[in-house]
Amino acid sequence: MAPSFEPLLARMQELKDLAGAIGLLTWDQETYLPSKGGEARADQLSTLQALHHERLVDAALGSLLEDARGDASLTGDARAMVRVLTWERERAVRVPESLVRELAQAQSRGLHAWHQARAERRFAAFLPALSRLLELRRAEADAIGHPGGERYDALLDAYEPGMKTARLREVLEALESRLVPIARVLCEQPAPRDWLTGDFPVAAQWRLCEQVLREMGFDLSAGRLDTSVHPFTGGTHPRDVRLTTRVDPRNLRQALFGAMHEGGHGLYEQGFDEAHYRTPLAAAPSMGLHESQSRLWENMVGRSHAFWRRYFPQVQAEFSAALGNADAGSVYRTVNQVTRSNIRVDADEVTYNLHIVLRFQLEVLLMRDALPLEELPREWNERTERLIGVRPADDVEGVLQDIHWAYGELGYFPTYALGNLYAASLFAAARRELPGLDEAIEHGELSLIREWLRRRVHAEGYRYPAEELVTRITGRGLTDADFIDYLRTKYGEMYGLRWDSAS
Amino acid sequence: MAPSFEPLLARMQELKDLAGAIGLLTWDQETYLPSKGGEARADQLSTLQALHHERLVDAALGSLLEDARGDASLTGDARAMVRVLTWERERAVRVPESLVRELAQAQSRGLHAWHQARAERRFAAFLPALSRLLELRRAEADAIGHPGGERYDALLDAYEPGMKTARLREVLEALESRLVPIARVLCEQPAPRDWLTGDFPVAAQWRLCEQVLREMGFDLSAGRLDTSVHPFTGGTHPRDVRLTTRVDPRNLRQALFGAMHEGGHGLYEQGFDEAHYRTPLAAAPSMGLHESQSRLWENMVGRSHAFWRRYFPQVQAEFSAALGNADAGSVYRTVNQVTRSNIRVDADEVTYNLHIVLRFQLEVLLMRDALPLEELPREWNERTERLIGVRPADDVEGVLQDIHWAYGELGYFPTYALGNLYAASLFAAARRELPGLDEAIEHGELSLIREWLRRRVHAEGYRYPAEELVTRITGRGLTDADFIDYLRTKYGEMYGLRWDSAS
Repeated sequence: MAPSFEPLLARMQELKDLAGAIGLLTWDQETYLPSKGGEARADQLSTLQALHHERLVDAALGSLLEDARGDASLTGDARAMVRVLTWERERAVRVPESLVRELAQAQSRGLHAWHQARAERRFAAFLPALSRLLELRRAEADAIGHPGGERYDALLDAYEPGMKTARLREVLEALESRLVPIARVLCEQPAPRDWLTGDFPVAAQWRLCEQVLREMGFDLSAGRLDTSVHPFTGGTHPRDVRLTTRVDPRNLRQALFGAMHEGGHGLYEQGFDEAHYRTPLAAAPSMGLHESQSRLWENMVGRSHAFWRRYFPQVQAEFSAALGNADAGSVYRTVNQVTRSNIRVDADEVTYNLHIVLRFQLEVLLMRDALPLEELPREWNERTERLIGVRPADDVEGVLQDIHWAYGELGYFPTYALGNLYAASLFAAARRELPGLDEAIEHGELSLIREWLRRRVHAEGYRYPAEELVTRITGRGLTDADFIDYLRTKYGEMYGLRWDSAS
Repeated sequence: MAPSFEPLLARMQELKDLAGAIGLLTWDQETYLPSKGGEARADQLSTLQALHHERLVDAALGSLLEDARGDASLTGDARAMVRVLTWERERAVRVPESLVRELAQAQSRGLHAWHQARAERRFAAFLPALSRLLELRRAEADAIGHPGGERYDALLDAYEPGMKTARLREVLEALESRLVPIARVLCEQPAPRDWLTGDFPVAAQWRLCEQVLREMGFDLSAGRLDTSVHPFTGGTHPRDVRLTTRVDPRNLRQALFGAMHEGGHGLYEQGFDEAHYRTPLAAAPSMGLHESQSRLWENMVGRSHAFWRRYFPQVQAEFSAALGNADAGSVYRTVNQVTRSNIRVDADEVTYNLHIVLRFQLEVLLMRDALPLEELPREWNERTERLIGVRPADDVEGVLQDIHWAYGELGYFPTYALGNLYAASLFAAARRELPGLDEAIEHGELSLIREWLRRRVHAEGYRYPAEELVTRITGRGLTDADFIDYLRTKYGEMYGLRWDSAS
């Protein structure tokens, strides 16, 4: 690094260290925090977040960034750091601190009201808090600005920089039109036996999860696996990456696919270039791309026939009570059953994206203030029925099922669908470049795909915007073609189906 | 609180929240941090500590404190908060930031060199790092100032505000003169059988520790117990207090007395007044007073005959392999054996303080730069022989045994001895005010002493300086009279001894 870059680098390191501390406080809140410590932790987090915001909007940082933008001697990586931090800072500068604080308070209240409403099983108890959160989010979006677009653009941009509502609508409408007929065909197939519900001792599940994580290449001496109610990936640094999962003694799904999902996120975090540590480049360029890694490992690897051919004998031996009469092919069908369900997190690879379409449509309406909140539950239920073909029995199965809106997080859901599309495109590119990939997975050599992802995706960090990086790797940008191909091939083989080009 | 106090209160809360975050990062470093995360954690801690220092020395905080000192409308608690924070800030302001950073670096290097030197079992490998640390500590002490006294005063003041080297020397010399003859008599007694070494299954030790902590009144829903190599008490807030202990499957001592020791610290932290949370009053007024609580629970309760009469039957049932042939009286003798040993942390209640005298004498010389470092190991060994009557076989048993100097912590050791004296005075006062105290302990009613300590000591927080608080409770200040009485009574009864007034 040039000496002139050092003061800016020190600022970047300070911001990353603060973010790391926030990461540990958040992780601890979900794992080891004593039950009476919640209020104190909320105070500590709010203080650190305010400090982070204050340092980010500091005028001196603005000057350093401005000088750096005019410095022709900077390396490409340094320029990328300046670009990313400038983008982050400009968003932060536009939001008045009073609004930041009001949002933090409304988020605490929102979470509380959401839990309350779930306990009462009625949306009405959550409505006032949600109304306030939406009001503040609209104000925030207007403060950030959305030139030539609409408010939802400003929120999307936080998670998927550069993405616009109009383009996302096109992508999701096209995806919906292709998925609906596929889902219709697959839901008509005979239901496989549910092999993964039964007697699955907790200690053996834990051993299996750690083994699979190790074989995926997740470094447990630079990270951890713990349990939490809502699985997530957190931590403080690429050498301190913390995954959580939850273990249900009656069901293997949650722990195993949860660990693989978070393990995919974790590999991304551990895979950043050492030269980028404590800089803005040690980050994924978008949440969609981050999600592509978790979905790739969870679905394209973990729900593949090759994976189950490899792991089934061992899993059967560990869980002989539940799986004594099963075989690899049956379990493979179990973990890939396509079914109409109300709950997003339980959804299969096909219908999952329809749950996202629903949330996207509603979020856009809410940001426009074009949907009276009283009508939200009915609107949710009717759209669920239209899109997926089932109807929630009550608000807990419907509009109250996800935690995101409880703290005012709008604009995040679409990144799950983008993650599915990016995952399929990356996996297709890997298959082209790594001819023996399926055989390698079947032999437990997960390092082949991992090292490819590390080199092509993880080590790049935030050097390029998400779509540009994907284009560099796959030869084309965001598309659903690879995803639809993947589904048709996988389910076509599974059920002996031939898809006509219209479906 | 008066509205005029609010901006100052907000500053206090911010400082406490930052300290809480530092507390969590430190706790995690010793408990759950992945092995490769050490360097990143050192960076994060150094960033947060620099931020804490920056906020503390901020001129705006200085002005708020100055205004508050002139505000006659403040409550007594508010005035105490202003006094404590002013004291803390004035120390910080005098130390240049460059020195703060140099010290942080030298501490990292010192710890590394100390571990290295212990591995090589020779002090010479630690000498250069220690030399640098001492140089910086001398500079720090001179920056803080020590009017009319000596450098060591400035370090002592950080842990035991108001304590001076000259007075401490008097206290420790008098204590030494009284302890040496007592130790001589007790070391001549026949050695009891060592009941606490043997087969002590880890899970049962853990259950016992948690039970004793609960019965002591430590709230495990406002705190935790985990394992670490060096037991300590940490956490982020009075409702998030974290104890650690270590469990040796061949020895019950470490886990049980470690848990009771840290539990004493933990009760203090949990016992602060809710009205003082996130202010400078939610703190002990000195490390000596903090240590009085751990020593009181570990020794005056945990090594009492009453305690063992209560817990022995249960402990025997849990650990029947080791204790099948023991009885309460024998175990009581085992845990109270007085013996000449090289290692401070293994020392009994009598000789422990002689280890502190040794360290105090050497620390004063080191701060005066009056002892060439090459001579430190020999000096250590000769003084050990003179004071305690044994000679370390090598530097690991001698000058390298404690971690404190490895990160340049000088001035802390004396608080352990002060803690023993304060503990005895407080326990004597409790006995006077609570006539059935021993019987209560024997019936497992630990709440009697706990509630007394909570009311008289913990809930006061940092309202008064340590010695003033002790005087308010016991009627007199720092004295070794109660401690010597306690030892003479305890060991006199144990061995049927009569002490003549000269010994």
